[in-house]
Amino acid sequence: VKGLPAHLIGKKRDGGTWTAAEIDDLVQGITEEEVTDAQLGALLMAGLLRGLDAEETACFTRAMRDSGEVYDLRDIPGRKIDKHSTGGVGDKTSLVLAPLAASLGVVVPMVSGRGLGHTGGTVDKLESIPGMRMQLAPEEFRSLLGRLGVAMSSQTERLAPADRRMYAARDVTATVESIGWITSSILSKKLAEGIDALVLDVKCGRGAFMKDRQRARELARSLVATAQRLGCPARARITAMDEPLGRAAGNALEVLESVECLRGGGPDDLRECVLLLAADMLVLGGVAADEAAARRAAVAALSDGRALRRFRELVAAQGGEARVADEPEKWLPRAPHVATVEATSDGFVQSIDAHRVGVAVVELGGGRRVEGQRIDHRVGVVCRRQAGERVARGEPVLDVHARSAVEAAPVVAGLAAAVRVAGAPPAGQPLLIEAVNE
Amino acid sequence: VKGLPAHLIGKKRDGGTWTAAEIDDLVQGITEEEVTDAQLGALLMAGLLRGLDAEETACFTRAMRDSGEVYDLRDIPGRKIDKHSTGGVGDKTSLVLAPLAASLGVVVPMVSGRGLGHTGGTVDKLESIPGMRMQLAPEEFRSLLGRLGVAMSSQTERLAPADRRMYAARDVTATVESIGWITSSILSKKLAEGIDALVLDVKCGRGAFMKDRQRARELARSLVATAQRLGCPARARITAMDEPLGRAAGNALEVLESVECLRGGGPDDLRECVLLLAADMLVLGGVAADEAAARRAAVAALSDGRALRRFRELVAAQGGEARVADEPEKWLPRAPHVATVEATSDGFVQSIDAHRVGVAVVELGGGRRVEGQRIDHRVGVVCRRQAGERVARGEPVLDVHARSAVEAAPVVAGLAAAVRVAGAPPAGQPLLIEAVNE
Repeated sequence: VKGLPAHLIGKKRDGGTWTAAEIDDLVQGITEEEVTDAQLGALLMAGLLRGLDAEETACFTRAMRDSGEVYDLRDIPGRKIDKHSTGGVGDKTSLVLAPLAASLGVVVPMVSGRGLGHTGGTVDKLESIPGMRMQLAPEEFRSLLGRLGVAMSSQTERLAPADRRMYAARDVTATVESIGWITSSILSKKLAEGIDALVLDVKCGRGAFMKDRQRARELARSLVATAQRLGCPARARITAMDEPLGRAAGNALEVLESVECLRGGGPDDLRECVLLLAADMLVLGGVAADEAAARRAAVAALSDGRALRRFRELVAAQGGEARVADEPEKWLPRAPHVATVEATSDGFVQSIDAHRVGVAVVELGGGRRVEGQRIDHRVGVVCRRQAGERVARGEPVLDVHARSAVEAAPVVAGLAAAVRVAGAPPAGQPLLIEAVNE
Repeated sequence: VKGLPAHLIGKKRDGGTWTAAEIDDLVQGITEEEVTDAQLGALLMAGLLRGLDAEETACFTRAMRDSGEVYDLRDIPGRKIDKHSTGGVGDKTSLVLAPLAASLGVVVPMVSGRGLGHTGGTVDKLESIPGMRMQLAPEEFRSLLGRLGVAMSSQTERLAPADRRMYAARDVTATVESIGWITSSILSKKLAEGIDALVLDVKCGRGAFMKDRQRARELARSLVATAQRLGCPARARITAMDEPLGRAAGNALEVLESVECLRGGGPDDLRECVLLLAADMLVLGGVAADEAAARRAAVAALSDGRALRRFRELVAAQGGEARVADEPEKWLPRAPHVATVEATSDGFVQSIDAHRVGVAVVELGGGRRVEGQRIDHRVGVVCRRQAGERVARGEPVLDVHARSAVEAAPVVAGLAAAVRVAGAPPAGQPLLIEAVNE
């Protein structure tokens, strides 16, 4: 019989629970393409509508992880810990966090994706640095980890191939929004990195995939519980993503801001996000006694240049222009045209719509509408004012970095609606919405 | 963007209702293969789990009908009426009904399918007749209808191509069992025949697709309501399918029994099924005033040879050996080996499991496990005793017509469990379970 026995799909259709052995068969069938595309679509929809329980989610995660190469990093000294974010606008946290944590004794084997849609990807951002190689072979990845305690690479095709096929199918079949499928997709790739623990940043708000707190909490809990069920300690932080994180959105512009942060400066919200997640990594890594001590250590490594030094070494080791760490304005590519979006009244910036800013970056050519699209690393949006800051009518609130005045014009027009200004300062929202530790 | 906008699938996922325009887009996308297989699988599963309402079902039916060729038979005099059965074991009703109705003035443009799984198909049965051509070109089909008032053909690829693709996908994605998808699949093909009215035989019981009465009623109502919504008057009869219909199951054996029925003989249950559906066709066709008159006319046409004559003419017109109508034992192919299943106790046959008999026919080579498989028209099972009949221990209950003793042996062994004998006669179940006229 060609294809999977339909009764396995029928079991979920009827509200049943798949056994571990059945899930192994399903994932093997998906990997080896014995499960047809039509079956995959039906299976994904049945899983979304009927749901996967905790055990099923863990079984899928394990089977998907084991569908390809799984790194074994046990011979590298130190605890291997990675961070995953569900994706936000202006989220360049990884660029600061990875070298920072490594400079404090945690080993960070970070495998990241490219951007798709209105949120960017770590790989694209780092590729803004001239010469930077993001496709590391497993041996080089491993050697960098041993030497620097950090390596940052794009996904290879051999990592979790079952997820590759499922992810592509979910994208076109309206089955992305399932806690079970999201959890197994994220964790199968992360756990294939051979990590000892995982820190998760679940973004919540209009610029994030999870718009409301209830769903974000559900996902965070599912991620933490599933990782732990598979023997990987994990912590999640639900953080606000109504505004862009930091001031810059767009690849090279975000690297610039990351370097500021690595120098101990940069916007408060970005620094806060870095410190929050760094503290979790240091505690899980056993290099800090508690969160307070971890935070103090991270602040020190940002202030005294240790984090920046590790970043410089990492860039150099991956073929990149290391002077970006010292003179980023000079060595990063810059867009030829900068236009501005101005305040239309006096007052305080109430909000800057992260989703609109993310869409603007895509429109400028800095992000992808479909997979595989080429992007321009130079373009993007910089918030001269963030929410809560005072502004006068006619003053620039946003800078739009574009390839030309012609390309900037419609984006500037569209971004006018992203900025809200009012007479009184906004209530102000803390970055951390909720911590999920189990 | 490749493929269908995922939001259309997402609408049903979220419990929404598709508009007529959206359904037209979906069906066009399915026909033109713009909808990917994965999308089709997800869409079918979402439709099954969320359901299609009456309007959606009608819109799918219409769009699927119009996805290919639609016969226009208006220039042929008389009312064009077809019969569709949801499939049962030993169900050779069409072979008798079509020439019978035609002999009484109804025009019967019958396009049928081949058998798959444990139920047989009209096309396979008729192909038992040496020389019989079942793939009629539209012109020949039309010409036969004009000349004889009846034509029996297999489906062409140009008829309802959207259904072809959906049907194949449903088969492997556990999405067969949906009232909406079943309704639109059946009716899209039938309505493409250019009929004025439709008679439906919804089989119910362990040998049928619908095992319980509630689901059978739901399907019957959906079929009748949808056909009527699309301007095609329809009636459905829910009939029992716990036992095989008639005594014979297997292609040539069923033709033989059909000829007996056309001669005014044959088993009571088969004759009853024919008369029931013939009455509906004659009333809907306006050639009988009411059911009683229609039944009398049908009985007469079976008794006086008119139905048999029309059958002989039809077979001859489609290239078949017409003498099958007179000496079927002589001109139909026969299996070389006949084995028997005997009663293990004295008493009355309580039941003969139709599903097991159907499976036995497939095992003997008379049916298909997968589409496209070649079949042997000679093999099958004949019930020497039907439910309610007296039998003595050791007497044959079933004849197994096989290619060899070796092939017969496991089937005989398996069929022992199909026959139940007890001391008292069974309660007895009428063939007609329920009539659904709207």
